Amino acid sequence: MKIAQPYLLFLGDVTDPLSAKTARGILKWRPQSCIGQIRLTEETVSLDLPEYSLQQAKDEGVKTLVIGTANSGGIIPDSWKQTLIQAAEMGFDIASGMHQRLSDIVELVKLKEEKGIQLFDVRHYDDQLKVGTGKKRSGKRLLTVGTDCAVGKMFSALAIEKALNENNIQARFKATGQTGILIEGSGISVDAVVSDFISGAVEAISPEFSDHDWDVIEGQGSLFNPSFAGVSLGLLHGAQPDAIVLCHEIGRKHIRNLPHADLPSIEDTISTNLQAARVTNPNVTIVGVCLNTSAISLEDAKTLCADWSEKYQIPVTDPVRFSVKSIVEKVAAL
Amino acid sequence: MKIAQPYLLFLGDVTDPLSAKTARGILKWRPQSCIGQIRLTEETVSLDLPEYSLQQAKDEGVKTLVIGTANSGGIIPDSWKQTLIQAAEMGFDIASGMHQRLSDIVELVKLKEEKGIQLFDVRHYDDQLKVGTGKKRSGKRLLTVGTDCAVGKMFSALAIEKALNENNIQARFKATGQTGILIEGSGISVDAVVSDFISGAVEAISPEFSDHDWDVIEGQGSLFNPSFAGVSLGLLHGAQPDAIVLCHEIGRKHIRNLPHADLPSIEDTISTNLQAARVTNPNVTIVGVCLNTSAISLEDAKTLCADWSEKYQIPVTDPVRFSVKSIVEKVAAL
Repeated sequence: MKIAQPYLLFLGDVTDPLSAKTARGILKWRPQSCIGQIRLTEETVSLDLPEYSLQQAKDEGVKTLVIGTANSGGIIPDSWKQTLIQAAEMGFDIASGMHQRLSDIVELVKLKEEKGIQLFDVRHYDDQLKVGTGKKRSGKRLLTVGTDCAVGKMFSALAIEKALNENNIQARFKATGQTGILIEGSGISVDAVVSDFISGAVEAISPEFSDHDWDVIEGQGSLFNPSFAGVSLGLLHGAQPDAIVLCHEIGRKHIRNLPHADLPSIEDTISTNLQAARVTNPNVTIVGVCLNTSAISLEDAKTLCADWSEKYQIPVTDPVRFSVKSIVEKVAAL
Repeated sequence: MKIAQPYLLFLGDVTDPLSAKTARGILKWRPQSCIGQIRLTEETVSLDLPEYSLQQAKDEGVKTLVIGTANSGGIIPDSWKQTLIQAAEMGFDIASGMHQRLSDIVELVKLKEEKGIQLFDVRHYDDQLKVGTGKKRSGKRLLTVGTDCAVGKMFSALAIEKALNENNIQARFKATGQTGILIEGSGISVDAVVSDFISGAVEAISPEFSDHDWDVIEGQGSLFNPSFAGVSLGLLHGAQPDAIVLCHEIGRKHIRNLPHADLPSIEDTISTNLQAARVTNPNVTIVGVCLNTSAISLEDAKTLCADWSEKYQIPVTDPVRFSVKSIVEKVAAL
C-alpha cells in the first residue's frame, strides 16, 4: 500500500474540531504533503490551509484526496459522496480511514476501473500476507509500546523519527494504524489483519534494510490491555525491536473503556515488554519513556520527568511539552 | 456456528493415512456422532466405519457430511465435488476444514439457497464479533497452553474433558481450531478472526455459564512462537482461565518450522503464561503438564513423568500413553 502524495485534505462537513484529528495529524507531521483543504460548508472545521476546488488541486499537482475527518460509526455520509465521486472522475486517488469502505460505494468502484485510480481503505487489509518467522533482519528498529491504548505511541514514534533525522540519523516511520498510514502514505493496520498474520504483517512493514539507520515502528495497544494484547504481542515479535520506548498517560485511572481493568505499573510494563521482545531480539533494550502529562502543570511535569529519569535510569520526557532529545541521544549511543 | 450431528465422514480419495487425521480425531472423541464413512475409491484410507451411500446415510439420520481429510494446499479437488453437490441436493449440511471455502463453489452456494442447507467453512470466520473486555464471567475455565504449536493442546483438552465427565465433574470442550470445531460441532478458529477480536472471540466461545462445572478450552500456538504468539496471548486473556495445563513434546529441537527459534524452558513457559493470564484472572493456577513422549520408550516416559512431577510439584503425564487422572484430581480440588 503506497498512497501517492501530495494530498488534498477533505474535511467534509464536520464542525467538531476533534473530528479532524486525522487531518491535523497529517498536517503536523507531513506539512509538505498537504497542498490544501476542501470543505463542504463554511461552518466546517478548518486547518487554515489554502481552500482548493478539485480542479485547483489538480492544477497544483495533488495526487490523492484524503478523508481527514472521522465520525462516530465510521460511515461515509451521503453528503460527502458527490465530492468523492467527482474526485474519482477527475483521476484522483482517494484514501480513507473510515470503517465503511470506499470500495463499498459502487460508483467509486466503477470509476476505479474506468479511470485507473486507486481507493485506499487503510482501516482494512485484504492482501495476502505471510506468516511471521522471527528471523533476524538487517537494520535497527525502535518500537513504541504502552501501558494502554491511546497513550501517545504514534505521536512519540513520529517525534523520535523527526528528531533522529534532525540529528543526521536516518530514520523512517513505519505505520501500523490508520492515521499513521495516512501520514506516512504506507503501512498496514495490524489490528485489521487475520490474527495468524500479525507478526508477519509487521515483518512486511519493516523488512530488511541497509539504506538508512533506523525504522521507528508505531506500536499499538498494550500487553496488559485485555481487548488488544494479542495485537501488541504479535507486533512486538514482528518488530524484533533493538530499542523500545514506553508510552504512558499520567492520571489515567484504568485501562481505556474498561473500568474493571487495572493499569499495569511502569516497572511491570517495561519488564514484560523486554521479556517478550527477547523472543525475537535478545539484545532489546529500553531507551526511554514518553509521558502524556497534559493532566498536570508544566512545572509538575518537569519535576516528574526528572524524578522518573533518576528512578528508572533512562530518559523520561513528554514529547508534546518538551523534546525527545534525551531519547535520541540514547538511541545514537546504541 | 453449530454443526448438526450425527456426521457422515467423507474421506474423498486420499490414500495417505495421515491425511485422514481430522476424521480420525472426530471418531476418537465423538464416536457416537460418526454414523459411517463415504469413500470415492477402494484404495482410499478407511476408518473401519460402516460404508454408506448418501441415501443410506440419509436413512440413518445423518445431518452433516464432514470432509474428514486434508491435502497440501487445502484445495477441494474436482474429484470430490460431485459427491458434495449431490449431498447438498439431498439436503445434507456440509462442513469443511479446508482452506478453500465450500462457499467458493457456486453450485453449493446455489443449493444452499434452494435447499436451505448450511455450509460450514470452519477454517474461516466471517461473522461479526465484539472486542473482548476481560470482565470476569461466571463458571470455571481450564485452558491448555504450550511450549509450541502441535504439542497436543487439543488432545489434552479433550482427554481432560472426558476424564472430568467420567468423574462426575460436568465439563464442556470449547474448540478454537478447525479439527476441534468439527469434533465438537461448534467453536471459532481464533487464528482466522481479525486480530482486534481474538480475545473477544474466546469470550464468545466460552460465555458466562452456571449449568455445568468447567469449560475446557483448546489452546493454540505458544507465547514463545514468533509466528503465532499474538493469537496465544489473546486466547489466554479471553479464556481468563482458572487453571492452565502446559503441553510439550519431548525431543522437539526448536520451534516448529523455525530452526532459528529456540524452544522456551518449561519454567519460563509456566511463569510467562501465569503472569500473562493474571491480567484477566489473578487467581489462575497451573494444574498439570501433558507431555507427548512418543520419542522415548514407555519406561523412560514413566520415569520422566515421575521425575518432573517431583521437580515441578504438579501432575505430569502423557495423555496418550497414560491417563490424565492426576490432573483431574487436581482440578477437582480447586
